[in-house]
Amino acid sequence: MKMNRQILLAKRPVGVPDSSTFNMIETVIPVPKENEVLIRSHYLSVDPYMRGRMNNIKSYAKPFQIGEPLTGDSIGEVIVSKHSGFATGELVIGTFDWADFSIVKGSELQKIHPTGAPITSHLHVTGMTGLTAYFGLLDIGKPLPGETVVVSGAAGAVGMVVGQIAKIKECRVVGIAGSDEKGNFLKDELGFDEVINYKNGEILQKLRNSCPNGIDIYYDNVGGEISDAAISLLNFHGRVPLCGQISALNSENTEKGPRLFTHIIRRSILLKGFIFSDYKEQFEEGRKVLAQWLNEGKIKYKENIVLGLENAPDAFFGLFRGENLGKQLVKIKE
Amino acid sequence: MKMNRQILLAKRPVGVPDSSTFNMIETVIPVPKENEVLIRSHYLSVDPYMRGRMNNIKSYAKPFQIGEPLTGDSIGEVIVSKHSGFATGELVIGTFDWADFSIVKGSELQKIHPTGAPITSHLHVTGMTGLTAYFGLLDIGKPLPGETVVVSGAAGAVGMVVGQIAKIKECRVVGIAGSDEKGNFLKDELGFDEVINYKNGEILQKLRNSCPNGIDIYYDNVGGEISDAAISLLNFHGRVPLCGQISALNSENTEKGPRLFTHIIRRSILLKGFIFSDYKEQFEEGRKVLAQWLNEGKIKYKENIVLGLENAPDAFFGLFRGENLGKQLVKIKE
Repeated sequence: MKMNRQILLAKRPVGVPDSSTFNMIETVIPVPKENEVLIRSHYLSVDPYMRGRMNNIKSYAKPFQIGEPLTGDSIGEVIVSKHSGFATGELVIGTFDWADFSIVKGSELQKIHPTGAPITSHLHVTGMTGLTAYFGLLDIGKPLPGETVVVSGAAGAVGMVVGQIAKIKECRVVGIAGSDEKGNFLKDELGFDEVINYKNGEILQKLRNSCPNGIDIYYDNVGGEISDAAISLLNFHGRVPLCGQISALNSENTEKGPRLFTHIIRRSILLKGFIFSDYKEQFEEGRKVLAQWLNEGKIKYKENIVLGLENAPDAFFGLFRGENLGKQLVKIKE
Repeated sequence: MKMNRQILLAKRPVGVPDSSTFNMIETVIPVPKENEVLIRSHYLSVDPYMRGRMNNIKSYAKPFQIGEPLTGDSIGEVIVSKHSGFATGELVIGTFDWADFSIVKGSELQKIHPTGAPITSHLHVTGMTGLTAYFGLLDIGKPLPGETVVVSGAAGAVGMVVGQIAKIKECRVVGIAGSDEKGNFLKDELGFDEVINYKNGEILQKLRNSCPNGIDIYYDNVGGEISDAAISLLNFHGRVPLCGQISALNSENTEKGPRLFTHIIRRSILLKGFIFSDYKEQFEEGRKVLAQWLNEGKIKYKENIVLGLENAPDAFFGLFRGENLGKQLVKIKE
């Protein structure tokens, strides 16, 4: 009898997660009940926000429980369906266990319809990270032609799409990323105007040089000192979509930083925290536009695909080493 | 020959201004040129934001210059007019010198039309501070009936109006102020539901007790630890009109405080810095509504009027001692 491998939260990490945070077990393949579906996972998405769910803190997503499988955005294939809307062999997207097999309610699944783009794009450009980029930049940032848009975490799955949408909107786009290799990719392949390598220090001076007309929109994926610098250069009526704070995700305590409110008042700046599900009602519109840009070649993407469920934890650790370029995925089965 | 007393910026203050910050001189009464008007000041408005203009920092208002008179919102009477729109004896409002007499361009003056309310209300409820309260609360805060609104600096000219508009909008209103006397006034006279005295410590616990359903809108006039506490209790989709940071006005350096962005993202919170002139196009609408509420007795006010130009500096220092209840004015001439 075939077994089901699952990756469980072994203990809540303090600071940066390591190999003791997870363990992998083998268990029997579960059997779906009425209205449920048994899924075999093909691809799972590895995302920084999952670190937040490892803490026992109430947030937009429920905390992971110790001894339970991690879950995340995934693509899989229906193996057994007890739900009238799904049939064996169909490809579906939803929140599945980090496992070979998962049981999911049919009401929480979506079929994947062909868009002309590779199937994995449903996990990024036309999925959660693409929609996060789309609504944060367009609804909060409201970019105008000729404005300067700075995006941190520019080589991440969200940042790459933010920069490309900003170019579609005829903005000057400056990315902040962690290596020259990433910077070259963003400039040469994705059309960013400039990319700053924050690891080379002097972030404030570099931003000043790259943004001679100041910054109109700062799309924040990282927080910390990079954001302090970018916010200090915002123009009057600047806008800050607050999307992620990867710099703070592994902190046990709230860190301290400069109090920015006086500056924010002086420049009439808008800051707005958000999560993509704030825009649930507009997902279909967003997906449609993103799929069109993808098919027209106006949005390109980069995937970083690791093979094998057993390598998912290491792929997750990589998010915090600042190594990955583009969307981190794990391929479990063809 | 009659002389003109003027209060000048003697030097840029470091930290809290004191008597060495200003000096008073006597000079000749100036003569208006074409399109200018000579004004005799009756009332001048004393406002915390003026501290910001004493630094040599580019902001929405130009810095005061050393050796030049301070200027501020004032009411006065036309003595000599070289502008076709104004005649001797008319009452006008504008930005005048802290002086007995000022020269002002006619294009920068407004006539005062009777509203039924005392003339000084043009310097607060239907003037700058009232409009600041009105647009910050209604345009950024967007209060809904039953929501909890917390306002800091509640006994100041802006805070008092914020709380009363929030009551008109059927919100639960919790003020934060610096004495029990102020708290009693806000509750007994202005209808605030609760007022917290921040000087008695334990601000976070007190706010928690006063806001059993969390905070939906935090109208920030003060910044610092009071704001840290209020922001930590904001509900999902909470809103923060950032109006003033009196706690930071006298700081030489940017102080440090907890980094709040992770929390702001988790709760999809909006923060918006603003200055009342962002709403210039809508001033007439705002003034009209405020005047109506004033005449209907839905908005009450408290003035703190000091007599004599020579006492204006001390009235200004009082803003930072947390002493004043309501709008601080100086009466120069009947």
